[in-house]
Amino acid sequence: MVDPFIYHNPTKVYFGNDALSHLHEELPRWGKNALLIYGGGSIRENGIYDTIVEEIRKAGISAYEISGVKPNPEMPLARQGARFCRERGIDLVIAAGGGSVIDTAKVIAGSALYDGDPWDLVKSRAQISHALPIMAIPTMAATGSEMNSCAVITNPDTHEKLGWTTEALRPRVSFLSPKNTFTVPPAQTAYGSADILSHILEVYLNRAEGFDAVDGFMESMMRSVIRWAPLAMEDGFHEEARTNLLWDSEWAINDLIDRGHSVSWTCHALEHELSAFFPIPHGLGLAILTPAFMEYVLNEETAPRLARFAVRVMGVKEGKNEIKTARKGIRKLRKFFTKSLYLPGRLSEIGLDDALFEDMAAHAMAWKSTDGILHGFYPLTEEDFVAIYKKAL
Amino acid sequence: MVDPFIYHNPTKVYFGNDALSHLHEELPRWGKNALLIYGGGSIRENGIYDTIVEEIRKAGISAYEISGVKPNPEMPLARQGARFCRERGIDLVIAAGGGSVIDTAKVIAGSALYDGDPWDLVKSRAQISHALPIMAIPTMAATGSEMNSCAVITNPDTHEKLGWTTEALRPRVSFLSPKNTFTVPPAQTAYGSADILSHILEVYLNRAEGFDAVDGFMESMMRSVIRWAPLAMEDGFHEEARTNLLWDSEWAINDLIDRGHSVSWTCHALEHELSAFFPIPHGLGLAILTPAFMEYVLNEETAPRLARFAVRVMGVKEGKNEIKTARKGIRKLRKFFTKSLYLPGRLSEIGLDDALFEDMAAHAMAWKSTDGILHGFYPLTEEDFVAIYKKAL
Repeated sequence: MVDPFIYHNPTKVYFGNDALSHLHEELPRWGKNALLIYGGGSIRENGIYDTIVEEIRKAGISAYEISGVKPNPEMPLARQGARFCRERGIDLVIAAGGGSVIDTAKVIAGSALYDGDPWDLVKSRAQISHALPIMAIPTMAATGSEMNSCAVITNPDTHEKLGWTTEALRPRVSFLSPKNTFTVPPAQTAYGSADILSHILEVYLNRAEGFDAVDGFMESMMRSVIRWAPLAMEDGFHEEARTNLLWDSEWAINDLIDRGHSVSWTCHALEHELSAFFPIPHGLGLAILTPAFMEYVLNEETAPRLARFAVRVMGVKEGKNEIKTARKGIRKLRKFFTKSLYLPGRLSEIGLDDALFEDMAAHAMAWKSTDGILHGFYPLTEEDFVAIYKKAL
Repeated sequence: MVDPFIYHNPTKVYFGNDALSHLHEELPRWGKNALLIYGGGSIRENGIYDTIVEEIRKAGISAYEISGVKPNPEMPLARQGARFCRERGIDLVIAAGGGSVIDTAKVIAGSALYDGDPWDLVKSRAQISHALPIMAIPTMAATGSEMNSCAVITNPDTHEKLGWTTEALRPRVSFLSPKNTFTVPPAQTAYGSADILSHILEVYLNRAEGFDAVDGFMESMMRSVIRWAPLAMEDGFHEEARTNLLWDSEWAINDLIDRGHSVSWTCHALEHELSAFFPIPHGLGLAILTPAFMEYVLNEETAPRLARFAVRVMGVKEGKNEIKTARKGIRKLRKFFTKSLYLPGRLSEIGLDDALFEDMAAHAMAWKSTDGILHGFYPLTEEDFVAIYKKAL
């Protein structure tokens, strides 16, 4: 039976290639002194920056900008942004970029009204009642940050990568244009797609009884990602592929699929430590760790769910032996990552060794419950975490 | 390719058997002088009424009430409610009941600030900017009205049953308790389930290209309804069945599945006339008309979609001949309605003859476009409508 829950996702989404043309209508409703946040030069090269500047002009509001957000975003830039907002009386934040940019914007918007160090809020997962309103303009299909209330950010001083989830961080309006994702390079398209799949699997791999329609939602989205991601890599301008991946990325992580039972986010816990210690893309870390995790936890108790995944998502023929069926599904998933998305399949292939696995496992267990165990799809200890890293080596 | 769209569903949902215990927390945020709207005695018998009154007391707000809303709700009560709101300075509407109650509450809330006849607003589909805030407490799984912006109401003077869709009518907070649906009788459970299936099929039966994940969402929800409805009829207290049906009923008609392409709502157009002329339950009308409609439009162009429905929803084995596969699926759907939900399969079984079919078809074509054709899954004329009614006889 499902646990009681609240579902509330008030983000307004404009979807379509012309989505950004509505930005000037929305801006004046939310503020008059905006801070535009973005990453490197890509939005300048593909014209998105110019469109945003023109929309801001049409809206008749003033705007400053902060750029230079990097993948796996870090606290220093967020601190700088929050201070800037206080000093300049910013009342609205616009984020244009991938999940890193939107998450940085969330931390800035959430701590702009706070006098102390923004990391205090992240570290304590502060449930704040107010944040500056955020408009999000995603430029790739991946984190779904533009339609949820979570930000993930790294503190380089402590090697901690933490998630901060609180309602005030949810973007008020998001502008989703498949066209704005056309120039995402093949490798980033692969990382984003692996991230979407992982968001779904973190919820799907669960022994609790949920809504059966929602199980089907998750299977349908995973099939969709598996279908379209290779096509979007082959031809960035494949509009149908980009369109489907973009919408998949939202519903994979916007509160629809995870209502009604607890979710442990085990692979994300494992991966966040990986990319807090090494500069590897989040999606790549997930693509390597997820099949290793699935293999490690495969047993009589987890086999029914993993076999269902194998049959309904990976297209494995249903067999009598669930363990065998499950194993085939995991093998097909790994093959999808390595052969269809061209991603390395092992940590050793990207130059990692096992020197830091104990440290990483200890950090990753920050998500554990008081009995020292992470209760997810299957209960895991710190030793199990080390073993999963080794399995992925 | 999908058309541009806006997705925005800000309704806050409390889900769980204790959902109503949050009512007193929400009420003071939205008003201090409420009008409670309900139907007959059922909410008094099953204790929901007492719970609501206690929650209103705990909230410390004042409340009036209007009861007596009937299935296929009519304008006179809505007019009375709107006048009452103006005279007593009501600032908040609470609706406790099925779709008829919630839709009546919507028309009241939407026209309470209007001095003229509320029917003017319905008839003109007025896009109003303000309505009184609505809290919805559904007592059955069916219309999904508690999470969308549409109200359907009948004007008995003109025999018109019209839908009024405008954002201001969307409930601000809804309280979904599976427990509150335990006492819904088997027949009403069947009507509600047929209504949910129809909401999905009206969108699913489409030749436009949509999101492929969303196609899977729809198939998954239809399988869920087909699985759980008979169990909820057999044992009203079947918590898993009631829980799944309730959540299915929301997502079947809350803007998720219909974004990105136009939808014609052909079976609803046909059914609304049926129940505007005869006192038959909306869900029953849909259960009779839908298979007749599907058979009528089955041809080379519609077969691929109908065959997909047959295979993925009705469990028909995939065959080479799509027309044959589709036909098997339609037959299984009719059998589901008649054998699993125990519903009459023909209009003649509920005492109708063809005397009014021309009148009904003419009225139903009010939804047509300027060329005199209703462009839906397949283009239909007024003559086609008469033929579908006859096929359902």
